[in-house]
Amino acid sequence: MITTIIGIGLLGGSYALSLRDKYPKMHFIGVDASEVHGRLAVAKGIVDEVLPMEIAIPKSDLVVLAVPVNYIVELLPQVLDLIHGKATVVDLGSTKRLICEVADAHPHRHRFVAAHPMAGTENSGPSAAFRELLPEKNVILCDCEKSDADSVALVEALFRDIGMKLHYMTPAEHDLHLAYVSHLSHVTSFALGYTVLEKERDEQNIFDMASTGFSSTVRLAKSSPAMWAPIFDQNRENLSRALGDYIEFLQQYKTFIDDRDIQASVDFMQRANEIRRILSGIEKK
Amino acid sequence: MITTIIGIGLLGGSYALSLRDKYPKMHFIGVDASEVHGRLAVAKGIVDEVLPMEIAIPKSDLVVLAVPVNYIVELLPQVLDLIHGKATVVDLGSTKRLICEVADAHPHRHRFVAAHPMAGTENSGPSAAFRELLPEKNVILCDCEKSDADSVALVEALFRDIGMKLHYMTPAEHDLHLAYVSHLSHVTSFALGYTVLEKERDEQNIFDMASTGFSSTVRLAKSSPAMWAPIFDQNRENLSRALGDYIEFLQQYKTFIDDRDIQASVDFMQRANEIRRILSGIEKK
Repeated sequence: MITTIIGIGLLGGSYALSLRDKYPKMHFIGVDASEVHGRLAVAKGIVDEVLPMEIAIPKSDLVVLAVPVNYIVELLPQVLDLIHGKATVVDLGSTKRLICEVADAHPHRHRFVAAHPMAGTENSGPSAAFRELLPEKNVILCDCEKSDADSVALVEALFRDIGMKLHYMTPAEHDLHLAYVSHLSHVTSFALGYTVLEKERDEQNIFDMASTGFSSTVRLAKSSPAMWAPIFDQNRENLSRALGDYIEFLQQYKTFIDDRDIQASVDFMQRANEIRRILSGIEKK
Repeated sequence: MITTIIGIGLLGGSYALSLRDKYPKMHFIGVDASEVHGRLAVAKGIVDEVLPMEIAIPKSDLVVLAVPVNYIVELLPQVLDLIHGKATVVDLGSTKRLICEVADAHPHRHRFVAAHPMAGTENSGPSAAFRELLPEKNVILCDCEKSDADSVALVEALFRDIGMKLHYMTPAEHDLHLAYVSHLSHVTSFALGYTVLEKERDEQNIFDMASTGFSSTVRLAKSSPAMWAPIFDQNRENLSRALGDYIEFLQQYKTFIDDRDIQASVDFMQRANEIRRILSGIEKK
């Protein structure tokens, strides 16, 4: 079986590394806009060879789209044009609504499976890829009823074999929930980093006074703008609502501080504390 | 030498554990409002015995105030009343302005040293204490010129001996900087936890869809309201300004999303990315 990974970065690279462990005979072709990344991916053993998309896709049985979501939207129709009749295409993008709409407009829609593995780090590129990223994590599949049964079965089997847990929902549900549990936390973290850098002009002060708590809260502010800007844009309506909610609660909390309403402040924090129960599950994932 | 720790929680307990490693002959007395915590602290080897404050303090050479900052303000005058003439009192509170003002009003002010070790976790109580919490971290001392030289020398030597790095500033500087690099990140994290819990009523969805990124950003939302409400209240002017700045930047970013201004969105995130340089230092701390 020949698998082509388009975009050999953190996610595409980690997926390939996990698959290689389970399927030593699978042949991996890499496609990447960056020649340096391509060479690095071969050197790191992520893919066997790097080829142009037009040559790689027609001979592939599985094509994995692991580029930023704006490029998924752009490349998906071209990829579906180029595949042979029995091939399967899967995307690993962090949004699903627009990608599924683009797929729906293509005559080979039925060979496509929309997926989102819930895993990542703040790092990017093939050097950030590692085989432990995906095992034990969740992956969401959308609109499976629009895909051929054999394509869904293949994609499910591969995710399951590398230890991922499968969930199913509509693209609209996916994008709504992700706005709250992922996109929002990225924006709050970017804004925290931005605020501290703008207001604490003396970086030595930040360095001396920040503890591991600050470091943890602001970690996602290190994430790639090229990856996240198109995710936020594709999911702008849900994200805007989530951000509006968040700003409203923050403003509410600010009045508790300004009014010295300590009981309201404690109540707010106690409600937030309930996240501990849920987090203890996530951290065990 | 006899040391009394008032408040044998995460910070007081960790400080005692670190000191015991360096000074096996030092005798430790614990004072705690909770009888359960007192027993636990003895069982865990954090202190040698637990006594009422009125008995412990007069025979101590060093008294460490490691209770929430509202209790530090309340207890500090009583502690300074009770010490013998050569004893030193140090507090480990996360605010410094009000505590130093309270100290300034006491005739034994010169035996007091105001300190803030920049370390913590989201957990509390003696069972959360661990000897690795403080070594390699920074500690800020304030208003040292108001303390007797021997008191400052003792406090400095103890922090240095357990591997902490000393910094000096005024209480006003301390509270201003801390609002940005610590208190703000706690509030943004509490508000994130609150928003997600309020808007994602199905906890299974949060559990299934949140990744380690969310978990990291929201970690501080698990922190103790009893500890943080008085910190935020004592530092309310600086925190309110920091929160106002943060909300303003968030609103700015929200307009980039609403207006689909992708270049502005990327620029904002790239500026925030600069935190990576500073964080790489903090994580090595």
